[in-house]
Amino acid sequence: MNKLVVVGSVALDSVEAPGGQHHDILGGSASFFATAASYFTQPHLVAVVGSDFPRQHIDFLRERGIDLTGLEQVQGQTFRWKGRYSNDLAHRTTLDTQLNVFAGFQPKLPESYRDAELLFLGNIEPSLQLEVLAQVRRPRLVAMDTMNFWIEGRPEQLHTVLAKIDLLVINDEEARQLAREHNLPRAARAILALGPKTVIVKRGDSGALLFHDGSVFVAPAYPLEEVVDPTGAGDSFAGGFMGYLAREGSLGPQSIRRAMIYGSVMASFSVEAFSLDRLRNLTPHAIEERYRAFCDLTHFGQVSF
Amino acid sequence: MNKLVVVGSVALDSVEAPGGQHHDILGGSASFFATAASYFTQPHLVAVVGSDFPRQHIDFLRERGIDLTGLEQVQGQTFRWKGRYSNDLAHRTTLDTQLNVFAGFQPKLPESYRDAELLFLGNIEPSLQLEVLAQVRRPRLVAMDTMNFWIEGRPEQLHTVLAKIDLLVINDEEARQLAREHNLPRAARAILALGPKTVIVKRGDSGALLFHDGSVFVAPAYPLEEVVDPTGAGDSFAGGFMGYLAREGSLGPQSIRRAMIYGSVMASFSVEAFSLDRLRNLTPHAIEERYRAFCDLTHFGQVSF
Repeated sequence: MNKLVVVGSVALDSVEAPGGQHHDILGGSASFFATAASYFTQPHLVAVVGSDFPRQHIDFLRERGIDLTGLEQVQGQTFRWKGRYSNDLAHRTTLDTQLNVFAGFQPKLPESYRDAELLFLGNIEPSLQLEVLAQVRRPRLVAMDTMNFWIEGRPEQLHTVLAKIDLLVINDEEARQLAREHNLPRAARAILALGPKTVIVKRGDSGALLFHDGSVFVAPAYPLEEVVDPTGAGDSFAGGFMGYLAREGSLGPQSIRRAMIYGSVMASFSVEAFSLDRLRNLTPHAIEERYRAFCDLTHFGQVSF
Repeated sequence: MNKLVVVGSVALDSVEAPGGQHHDILGGSASFFATAASYFTQPHLVAVVGSDFPRQHIDFLRERGIDLTGLEQVQGQTFRWKGRYSNDLAHRTTLDTQLNVFAGFQPKLPESYRDAELLFLGNIEPSLQLEVLAQVRRPRLVAMDTMNFWIEGRPEQLHTVLAKIDLLVINDEEARQLAREHNLPRAARAILALGPKTVIVKRGDSGALLFHDGSVFVAPAYPLEEVVDPTGAGDSFAGGFMGYLAREGSLGPQSIRRAMIYGSVMASFSVEAFSLDRLRNLTPHAIEERYRAFCDLTHFGQVSF
C-alpha cells in the first residue's frame, strides 16, 4: 500500500440538470477524488473550507476513512460553484463561481503527508501546485489535472509544473487547447514533450485514452442509460485511478491499464446521482461487478501480452 | 465461407480536405464496402454506374476479386457527390449531390447472388432495400445502413425495412434522430424495439458500440496521427465487419465481436488516404498487424468469458 495525497478543492455546488436542482451540495475536485480513492486506500486530503462548511460533510469524509489532517477550516465562506447542464447533458454552463476562502488557499502538507508515494495535484493554480510539489520528499508518481482557465491565464507557471510531474490527466478540449492541436494523438505527443511521461485524455462518454511510452490504451466509458449529474466524473476517475495504484503498489504498465478501468468504474458510478451521493455507499462487490462489466464490454479474445 | 452480397452506390466523389482537393475519385458505399470486404471473402456487388464511369475503376474492383455480375452500366452520368471537410476534419459539408443514373436504380440480383448467406443493404432508398430483400432466398444475416435523409423523408418505408432485417449499422447522430433520444444506450434499445436483433452505432473517432442480446461491446477507433479523408470510413467498417463474418462462417457472439475489430481495422486504413486508395494494396500481414494493435490498445488482463 502506497501513501496517496490529494490537494484540491472542497466546495459547495449548486447544480441544475434535467433530473433536478440541488443547492449547496458537496462538491470540489478533492472531495470527488478522495471519496473515489477511499474504496482502494486511505487518501490524505489537503484543502480549505470556510466556517459555514456543514459538519455532516466532514463527518462523511472521515467515515470514508479519508485522512483530514490537511483539511483547513478558516473564517469565511466555502468555495461555491453553480452550473447548469443542457437537457442532453452534453453541455455545461458555469453560472457562478465564488472562490471565497479558496482565494487565499496556501496548501500546507502536514508532516505526516510528506512521505507520500503518490501525489495528485487537483485543478488549482499552477503556482500552488508547485508549492505542494516542493513539500513532498520523494514521491514515486506525481499526477495533476488542470483546466482552460490556467492554460489561458497562467501558461508559464503551468509549463513549469508540467516539466516536473509524471502524469497529466486532462480532458479532450483542454488537451487540444494546451497543445494547440485538434488531433488527440498528436496533441498527446505534444504534451508529452512538455515533461510528463504519461498523458491521460478524458473524453466523457467516449472514455479515456492513455498515452505512455509509445503505447496507447483506450478505456471505454460505461454505456449508462441514466446519467444524472456529470459533475465530478473526471475527479472520480482520477481518484479511482490513483487509489487503485496506491493499493497495488505497482506502477507497471499492466497496473496502469487496470487503474484506467477502475478509474472508469468510479466515474461511471459518480454520474449516476447528484453530488457524490452514488459514491457514499458502494460495496467492494459492486465495484468488482462493474469492473467485470468493463471486461465484458471490451473483450474479444485479445491476443495476450 | 459464406456468400456476401452488397447493394449500394458506386460513385465519383469530389473531396476537399486539409490534405488536398480531388475531383471525380472513386467513391460510393458499395465501393468502400466491397473493397474492404474483399480482403476476407469474395463480395458480390449490386450497383449502377453511368457510361462515363472510368474503365480503370471497374478493372480495379475486378482485380480485388469482387464479383461484378450485378454491376449495371447504363447510359448517362454516374452518381456524383461533392463535399468539404473542416480543417480539423470534425465536420463535413455536402456541396453537391447529383444522383444521375442512380435516380433510376432498380437493383436486380443476378441469379447467382440469390442464395447469399450475408446481405448488406447499403444506404439507399428504403423501398429499394425492400426490393432487394424480396430477391434473396434464405439469408442468415441481413444488415443495413441508412441516413438522415431517409429517416426524415421515408420514415414509414424505413420502419418496414427495419422490421425485416437483423442488424442495423448507423452513426451516432442518425441513431439519435431515428430513436428521438440523445442517450445512445437508450437510443439503441429503442431501435432494437423496431426489429433488428443487433445495432451497431458508429461514433467516428470514438469507435463503435455493438448492442446485441442485452450485452454491449465497445470497439475503439484506432488513434491515428494522420487522418486524410474520412469519406467511406463507415462503409469500410461495414465491409470489414461483414467480410470477416463471411470468411468465418460463424455468427456467434465472439465472431461478431472480432468482426467489430476487423471493421475498425478497415475503417482505420480507409481514412489514411483519399478515396479508397489505402485499401488498394493492403497485405494480409498489414491487416493482422493492425488487428494486433487493436488487441494492444484494449487489453488489460480482462477476465475471460
